Amino acid sequence: MAPTDVQHTLGSYRRATVVGVGVIGISWTGLFLARGLEVTVNDPRPEAEHEVRTGLDQLLPALADLGLPTGGLTDRLRFEADLATAVAEADVVQENGPERLELKQELWALIEQAAPAHALLATSTSGIPASDIARSLRQPERLVVGHPFNPPHLVPLVEIVPGEQTSAETVERARAFYAALGKRPQVLRREVPGFVANRLQSALFRECVHLVAEGVVTEAELDDIVTSSIGLRWAVAGPFRTFHLGGGPGGLPHFIAHLGKGMEARWRDLGNPTFDEPTVTLLTEQARQDFGDRTVADLAAERDQAQIALMRALDGLPG
Amino acid sequence: MAPTDVQHTLGSYRRATVVGVGVIGISWTGLFLARGLEVTVNDPRPEAEHEVRTGLDQLLPALADLGLPTGGLTDRLRFEADLATAVAEADVVQENGPERLELKQELWALIEQAAPAHALLATSTSGIPASDIARSLRQPERLVVGHPFNPPHLVPLVEIVPGEQTSAETVERARAFYAALGKRPQVLRREVPGFVANRLQSALFRECVHLVAEGVVTEAELDDIVTSSIGLRWAVAGPFRTFHLGGGPGGLPHFIAHLGKGMEARWRDLGNPTFDEPTVTLLTEQARQDFGDRTVADLAAERDQAQIALMRALDGLPG
Repeated sequence: MAPTDVQHTLGSYRRATVVGVGVIGISWTGLFLARGLEVTVNDPRPEAEHEVRTGLDQLLPALADLGLPTGGLTDRLRFEADLATAVAEADVVQENGPERLELKQELWALIEQAAPAHALLATSTSGIPASDIARSLRQPERLVVGHPFNPPHLVPLVEIVPGEQTSAETVERARAFYAALGKRPQVLRREVPGFVANRLQSALFRECVHLVAEGVVTEAELDDIVTSSIGLRWAVAGPFRTFHLGGGPGGLPHFIAHLGKGMEARWRDLGNPTFDEPTVTLLTEQARQDFGDRTVADLAAERDQAQIALMRALDGLPG
Repeated sequence: MAPTDVQHTLGSYRRATVVGVGVIGISWTGLFLARGLEVTVNDPRPEAEHEVRTGLDQLLPALADLGLPTGGLTDRLRFEADLATAVAEADVVQENGPERLELKQELWALIEQAAPAHALLATSTSGIPASDIARSLRQPERLVVGHPFNPPHLVPLVEIVPGEQTSAETVERARAFYAALGKRPQVLRREVPGFVANRLQSALFRECVHLVAEGVVTEAELDDIVTSSIGLRWAVAGPFRTFHLGGGPGGLPHFIAHLGKGMEARWRDLGNPTFDEPTVTLLTEQARQDFGDRTVADLAAERDQAQIALMRALDGLPG
């Protein structure tokens, strides 16, 4: 994509500040750079710059596979340890600090004071409501949750979660910004702990832990069951559409009318595990058996490559 | 695939009998035919033959997309209303009758008497344990659950669920048969109601219903969240692998040690909906808004096309 295209697509966004560069912050940084933005990174840890540069090197193959430019990205990257200076010229601030309310309130009070009045202010938090963080702000209408599904340079979803006081304008700007980045933003209608994707992930994982703890399947067997059935389904059609298409010509209403009671009975039968000592030992041992001889980085690269192949296949379809 | 290849791959299986031809039975019939088997269909309903022939016509595009031969399939198809006659020469019997224990016990007692001693005996049941059905058999070691994820011609998974008395030989034969058909069989280590894939699907769907009932998202929004995040992930890496890769270099053990308590708290916060009147009304209305102007058959064809594209993309990857 040529720079002029990027500026057209991203409109008025030219300078992004990424606050906090753990895994999520590094991934945002890579995506922002690949989409043509100038990026200022702020992180108080002295090792942050090294981690970002190393992390970006690791992202490059995936960015290239996604069809994004990867040459000279770091020409537009700078590091600024002073938060007020780092955000002073930002068109957008994406914060990825530790998940502690008081810390985020402090960060955002500082950012609000130092950032331009036009800057879009978004937090990547996966668990703290914007309503709570914004209590430290003079203009709480400016802050919104822009929660990516990890890693943000790769997974399309960004959950936009407005706080009680977030303005409709802020929400709309956030949606347009993430869409221009090539993401798939989704605005939640209510703040709910964990937002949507992580809640759904937790709901499924609870039953996964139960079935492994009960000895019905191993972790590897369960993973294989998921990738060869519901995972493949849910990559192309969500749960409601799936049941709509599984209900015969009458669709979801027919499905609920005829199978709703059976589904309720199934729900009552689902497991309720805890991470007690025997369960943790079992899960840990099986994970070491399955993955022990390969690094997480290698496995993740393999997984990401497969996922990009899927995304390309879907992009090539009509509609 | 040339006939000799098929016979080589499927070994001694040449004649399959499909008992009961609802949606699942028709799909098995199409797959068996496309894989070169001679198929005898048994179903007491007078409209069964018409439904099978119509249904097969609708399957052909998907079978072709899967790279399977689709010419002259019905040359190897016959209909036999008498069950004993239908199974008399079968190498494999795949039963897809109504989900009623007494009926399945009657069917299988008859099949056991009439089928050759070497025939593989499999039931597609999604909910009745082989242990219960086999109480009507003289040789309960011969019966096994071969539960496909709908539709079997398309979704790779087949859950093989041995009953208490199913022999290891029967399990191994079933695994080899489904693998030779191009499916991805998975043997469960214990009988559990709903088996694995449907239990996981139910667990996720419970939270889906909760989030829509609570007004956090609509059905369409939730579906979009799933396809753009966890669905895409779970198509290439199951839940355990996903959390292993989300736990940093320490993998799943690190993840559980550091985030297990938070996950347990999330589990306690998950919803517990029922299909009460307001919920059913809401779900029905939203489904009609989302899908009302298109037929289930059209939507399903579109979904299946997308899924085949994904399967092809994954097949093209190393490993």
